[in-house]
Amino acid sequence: MLTSHAIDTVVRAALDEDAPWGDLTSEVLIPADALATAQLVAREPGVFSGEAVFEAAFRLTDPRILVHRLTADGAAFAAGDVLAEASGPARGILQAERIGLNFVQRMSGIATLTSAHVFAVKDTRARITDTRKTTPGLRALEKYAVRCGGGFNHRFGLDDAILIKDNHIAVAGGIRAVLERAKAAAGHLVKIEIEVDSLEQLQEVLDCGLADVVLIDNFDVASMRKAVEQVAGRLVIEASGGITLDTIGEIATTGVDYASSGALTHSAPALDVGLDIEI
Amino acid sequence: MLTSHAIDTVVRAALDEDAPWGDLTSEVLIPADALATAQLVAREPGVFSGEAVFEAAFRLTDPRILVHRLTADGAAFAAGDVLAEASGPARGILQAERIGLNFVQRMSGIATLTSAHVFAVKDTRARITDTRKTTPGLRALEKYAVRCGGGFNHRFGLDDAILIKDNHIAVAGGIRAVLERAKAAAGHLVKIEIEVDSLEQLQEVLDCGLADVVLIDNFDVASMRKAVEQVAGRLVIEASGGITLDTIGEIATTGVDYASSGALTHSAPALDVGLDIEI
Amino acid sequence: MLTSHAIDTVVRAALDEDAPWGDLTSEVLIPADALATAQLVAREPGVFSGEAVFEAAFRLTDPRILVHRLTADGAAFAAGDVLAEASGPARGILQAERIGLNFVQRMSGIATLTSAHVFAVKDTRARITDTRKTTPGLRALEKYAVRCGGGFNHRFGLDDAILIKDNHIAVAGGIRAVLERAKAAAGHLVKIEIEVDSLEQLQEVLDCGLADVVLIDNFDVASMRKAVEQVAGRLVIEASGGITLDTIGEIATTGVDYASSGALTHSAPALDVGLDIEI
Amino acid sequence: MLTSHAIDTVVRAALDEDAPWGDLTSEVLIPADALATAQLVAREPGVFSGEAVFEAAFRLTDPRILVHRLTADGAAFAAGDVLAEASGPARGILQAERIGLNFVQRMSGIATLTSAHVFAVKDTRARITDTRKTTPGLRALEKYAVRCGGGFNHRFGLDDAILIKDNHIAVAGGIRAVLERAKAAAGHLVKIEIEVDSLEQLQEVLDCGLADVVLIDNFDVASMRKAVEQVAGRLVIEASGGITLDTIGEIATTGVDYASSGALTHSAPALDVGLDIEI
Amino acid sequence: MLTSHAIDTVVRAALDEDAPWGDLTSEVLIPADALATAQLVAREPGVFSGEAVFEAAFRLTDPRILVHRLTADGAAFAAGDVLAEASGPARGILQAERIGLNFVQRMSGIATLTSAHVFAVKDTRARITDTRKTTPGLRALEKYAVRCGGGFNHRFGLDDAILIKDNHIAVAGGIRAVLERAKAAAGHLVKIEIEVDSLEQLQEVLDCGLADVVLIDNFDVASMRKAVEQVAGRLVIEASGGITLDTIGEIATTGVDYASSGALTHSAPALDVGLDIEI
Amino acid sequence: MLTSHAIDTVVRAALDEDAPWGDLTSEVLIPADALATAQLVAREPGVFSGEAVFEAAFRLTDPRILVHRLTADGAAFAAGDVLAEASGPARGILQAERIGLNFVQRMSGIATLTSAHVFAVKDTRARITDTRKTTPGLRALEKYAVRCGGGFNHRFGLDDAILIKDNHIAVAGGIRAVLERAKAAAGHLVKIEIEVDSLEQLQEVLDCGLADVVLIDNFDVASMRKAVEQVAGRLVIEASGGITLDTIGEIATTGVDYASSGALTHSAPALDVGLDIEI
Repeated sequence: MLTSHAIDTVVRAALDEDAPWGDLTSEVLIPADALATAQLVAREPGVFSGEAVFEAAFRLTDPRILVHRLTADGAAFAAGDVLAEASGPARGILQAERIGLNFVQRMSGIATLTSAHVFAVKDTRARITDTRKTTPGLRALEKYAVRCGGGFNHRFGLDDAILIKDNHIAVAGGIRAVLERAKAAAGHLVKIEIEVDSLEQLQEVLDCGLADVVLIDNFDVASMRKAVEQVAGRLVIEASGGITLDTIGEIATTGVDYASSGALTHSAPALDVGLDIEI
Repeated sequence: MLTSHAIDTVVRAALDEDAPWGDLTSEVLIPADALATAQLVAREPGVFSGEAVFEAAFRLTDPRILVHRLTADGAAFAAGDVLAEASGPARGILQAERIGLNFVQRMSGIATLTSAHVFAVKDTRARITDTRKTTPGLRALEKYAVRCGGGFNHRFGLDDAILIKDNHIAVAGGIRAVLERAKAAAGHLVKIEIEVDSLEQLQEVLDCGLADVVLIDNFDVASMRKAVEQVAGRLVIEASGGITLDTIGEIATTGVDYASSGALTHSAPALDVGLDIEI
Repeated sequence: MLTSHAIDTVVRAALDEDAPWGDLTSEVLIPADALATAQLVAREPGVFSGEAVFEAAFRLTDPRILVHRLTADGAAFAAGDVLAEASGPARGILQAERIGLNFVQRMSGIATLTSAHVFAVKDTRARITDTRKTTPGLRALEKYAVRCGGGFNHRFGLDDAILIKDNHIAVAGGIRAVLERAKAAAGHLVKIEIEVDSLEQLQEVLDCGLADVVLIDNFDVASMRKAVEQVAGRLVIEASGGITLDTIGEIATTGVDYASSGALTHSAPALDVGLDIEI
Repeated sequence: MLTSHAIDTVVRAALDEDAPWGDLTSEVLIPADALATAQLVAREPGVFSGEAVFEAAFRLTDPRILVHRLTADGAAFAAGDVLAEASGPARGILQAERIGLNFVQRMSGIATLTSAHVFAVKDTRARITDTRKTTPGLRALEKYAVRCGGGFNHRFGLDDAILIKDNHIAVAGGIRAVLERAKAAAGHLVKIEIEVDSLEQLQEVLDCGLADVVLIDNFDVASMRKAVEQVAGRLVIEASGGITLDTIGEIATTGVDYASSGALTHSAPALDVGLDIEI
Repeated sequence: MLTSHAIDTVVRAALDEDAPWGDLTSEVLIPADALATAQLVAREPGVFSGEAVFEAAFRLTDPRILVHRLTADGAAFAAGDVLAEASGPARGILQAERIGLNFVQRMSGIATLTSAHVFAVKDTRARITDTRKTTPGLRALEKYAVRCGGGFNHRFGLDDAILIKDNHIAVAGGIRAVLERAKAAAGHLVKIEIEVDSLEQLQEVLDCGLADVVLIDNFDVASMRKAVEQVAGRLVIEASGGITLDTIGEIATTGVDYASSGALTHSAPALDVGLDIEI
Repeated sequence: MLTSHAIDTVVRAALDEDAPWGDLTSEVLIPADALATAQLVAREPGVFSGEAVFEAAFRLTDPRILVHRLTADGAAFAAGDVLAEASGPARGILQAERIGLNFVQRMSGIATLTSAHVFAVKDTRARITDTRKTTPGLRALEKYAVRCGGGFNHRFGLDDAILIKDNHIAVAGGIRAVLERAKAAAGHLVKIEIEVDSLEQLQEVLDCGLADVVLIDNFDVASMRKAVEQVAGRLVIEASGGITLDTIGEIATTGVDYASSGALTHSAPALDVGLDIEI
């Protein structure tokens, strides 16, 4: 659960950006005492994420606006469903509209795309996971949206797991050397993952017995199957590279444990939701 | 030009997010005194945006890292081109890598998508413009990226133009009423745009002679042509709704002045760039 | 309408400044459970601005203090009028007093000075407008106060209109060149204003037909009249330089559309209001 | 000395406010590689304050701009004097111009007004002091400007001295009671000042022997003289109320130690300085 | 009284630090609709400080959590006493637990240690005071905690009193020179304290008659007695250096007015309090 | 490695706190152009931590001050050793002194205490680890200081590992149920630790085979030995409760893998270092 404070912080930044001097149009055209009700309506089906940020967008614009949440984060909805309602002073509702929508469109877009990936692997052992390729400033919301879509989170940042890549291997002088150094230095709550790009490298990792997770990057499907056989359950296997809705189904049949996709967060299309306002 | 301070502010937020406690992997595996050079390499062709944020990502991680800019914002590049170089302490370069890339991928993705739209309308009078459907917290960077791609910016926020929509018309009691009120209240540096959804409404707007820009929303191409004839240069026309790379070419032939697309900022795929590091 | 969040942000900065360690005097001399009521009373007549910041000053000091707003922003008041009331814990009321007053004195000072200018031009077409010469950090509040006094806002910042000055003209190589370049580069929601210092320059601007507004700077009244004749309604005219309560009346009779004054915000005397407290 | 960090913080807030999206005019009209030099020139005589904030305005806009300080804070200057110079990229110089000027105009305005007061009392024992009636967010700069003008600072906030007013006296049950309580509770580095509005109250304060400073508020000149006689050096006397350039001379002859004026900070006219730019 | 805003600011920083991405354990193991009650229980006796920060930790995590304060800041308590209660959603209570406890443990630790010092000097004229050796970022809370324990605050920062040390004396050219310069430059609400390290220096200070407080640093007890005799009430005497619970009793008998200890804030052991939660 | 930005952020907060209005004493007593050199000298032996924050304290006060680092973080030093030097304007050096010292004293205090624990367990398999009982706002620095002292970090926050306590067990309905739920929900980079308070609970945990780490809380030494035997290398064992320099030696002989101590961060005495200044 993100703290109320953390959600407010992100919404504050968006408000600062959108209306530092107020909303000219509403100030000029809408009477100060006009009231309005607004419905957040889905224009296409999807999975919801963003109830708390939607609420905060209106509250931090004008505390007299009340928001009723009708759909919970993580729930699926159909086109036309009403996801939430807001009521109160019309100026504030018009002013907060775009901010509220921007967050919901982005977060629900991520949740929906994640959910489609999860659905595509549903009869396999594969789990869907994100990456650190998130929108700067919105990582907490985007990783939360991945969870809403049924996905799992990879590292939050550089500090909650060790992920060894080719540069680290080269500097340390090889796979065994790097894993030994990592194992010696890692605390008891830090997992060690290592990226390999060949079955030979994978074998070296297996021989060491020091890693928790192996990342097989840009393997073709046949190689993934071989990797799964080779590992035989001794390590968790994460596949990355070229994970899309088109490919994920077949990839999942290889027996990998996780498939990670940066596109879940950096390229998910915004979900189409709108606000129907009555003043 | 964004101020140096404004760019640093966005980058600081990203650094706070990615490595509040440091980079475990580098701290454990890379000697403190190891040096590295890194090349920002395009993995696909595109239009560059983000030179200053890329530089800031490294400088604010470790001021001893020097960044050389090789490609200017707004320049096109081919796959394989080196866009920038960084050199200095290896730990800091590895630590800042993902942050730098996240910004460049997003901004160059927007610039590249915008540029493709601009190219598609190149022999028409149409200009490409963005919307307020930007990523919360990154509007300044994203609207800058649209400019790098040859596009024009719509309003930055709710306060730098009046944009009249159906709710405002309804509250004011009609198009003439709303335009008269807007004209009376607007200052001399504020333009007035009004959204219409039919040729009849468009005619009403024309009859008033009070608007600067008319937004024709979700018109089909035939109606756009009629709108252009009807307006006959008396107003600037902006078309919105369903603007994609597939449709923009035909839309531009109708003679509209601007075509606006939220997808430029909210759904542009991240551009594939990588960092080749030597330690 | 400024967002509730934006107002709180400014007030928080003031509280940080005034009592980072608390209010020594009240802590020592007022019992923790003492209650008080306070009336915000005008010591001189004026136009009110600042109801929301006044409320926030008390709420953010101690949320148990309730503020009742008795005069709306933009309303005129007489000496002795009660503009608002606060009630709750006495320590908090004493602690927030000066912060609340500082804001109201400044904002109402600006609104009152603006209103006097507006009154002085009341039978002319002239409108009063501010400049960017605002107090650093308080621009949103000060420009809002100008609106409370019946004035109009000039640009909020460097990014919501193009204002061409002598340096720009010189670099571009003349008035026609600069206006053509500006017109070509400006988006459809950006107005173009150009500053001239002679009737000859004015004629050049008119001949180009590319500007929306002309700023005639430091013209004497006779020249202003000639300028108005020369323009004959083809451009909006803004007069600046030497606009004071003494001069504005005559200037307005020349037929200019706007008169802009930096003094409205940078040199408005604080309005005398006080807080009558009963404990 | 204000820290470099503190000055940067205030300037950053001003930059955020003035050009969140950049400077449209310069971006469109000034080539990216154009260079400029700028001179900060006094349009009227005064006392300078603000060298460090002026420098920061340019540096935080574009670090490649160099500022040379030619006049030190606290120095007097004549109309036409060059106070500082900046050189570097033209866009950045134009963009930072107004921010730099806003600070210098305000701070030098305060320093100059303070200096005029100081000059008016020059052959007396009276010192000029400010109040807490400062611009919200700018107290550190404004109180610094008072010092540049030769004035003395009153309390910075509610926490660095005890100042007893009528409400405190009433709650405590009289002057002796309030002073005894204050003395008992105050630490060894906290001075105690008490406000009185009659010679009778003053006598009570003297009889207690517990205060460090007495504030005689809104006394006429004759009463001030009597107060000075009555006190006979046993307390520091601060006079407040109606302190202006017109009255301060006579007030100073009464023998009071300090005269405090809120107008020094809340109503000082901006000093006229300009930036002469060559591109 | 610290403002509500100031307390929230510190708590927000702590929340940012502890759970930027949420509380994994509770999210996974505790149903979203589970409720809980929690009691803040003392595991050892002490003096309480931190009621408002404890409340804020829960409110800013989830506003639906209600906190009831049972013990006031400054009150003594026994092991086993319930100091406060919280009730509401279980996830939020578990998530905020450590933050709330960290603040209470630290602040009550300081209050308790201060109180022990105060008790140790109870039949003397000596008062206990803190220093500027506080935890960076927490000075307001820590100095408040000292007050809760019955202590007095020394300077809050470098700006609310003049404290002259050996370096200043050396630069100014001796004790008389430094005191004369300080007296001439100090405003009427600024006390002047000077540190001496010998009885000879002390005599020089006395001869000048210009200081308010003398700081005798690292004097042995015999020298302190002599200093008290020598001063004979003409100055306030603060003793520093080697002030501990073991030594403070004897030191207080010497007749010094204040004894200052940095250990009160920089080395107070955290007080043992816990949260008993029922879900 | 903490980013340069992260370190600056913490130091900025400390500067805001200590000298918002400047340093009265230096401003009054030290000429603006006086220069000084300062040596950071150890008054007692220890392990250093804080070189970067020390540097930042001076640089952010006055960028003209240069700091030379003579001792690296993590290095041991003797009483009298010079740890770093600063040179530049005297006012700034005096102003930054306390801030720089406060950080070094705290961080080196933690590093030194940690190092003493590490030394005490040097011939055993036990490692020393911290907790989340850190100073609010300083967790990054304090956990870094633990690493400087040779310790290992426990979780940074609530989000980088799952730590199951009694409340979670109770809600889930027992150890097996809670572990199964945790295992099913945890991603592949999240370790699962569970706290037990008896050997019976430990056996349950072992039987499940789902946890990575077991936390044995408040076990006596005999029980710890039994726990180690019982676990027989199948789990990592962390011991907590009553870990002090007096007890850690014996505890380490039991064969536990980690011993965690909140006192390392919440109650480490400040290390005695001073700044010797020459002006």
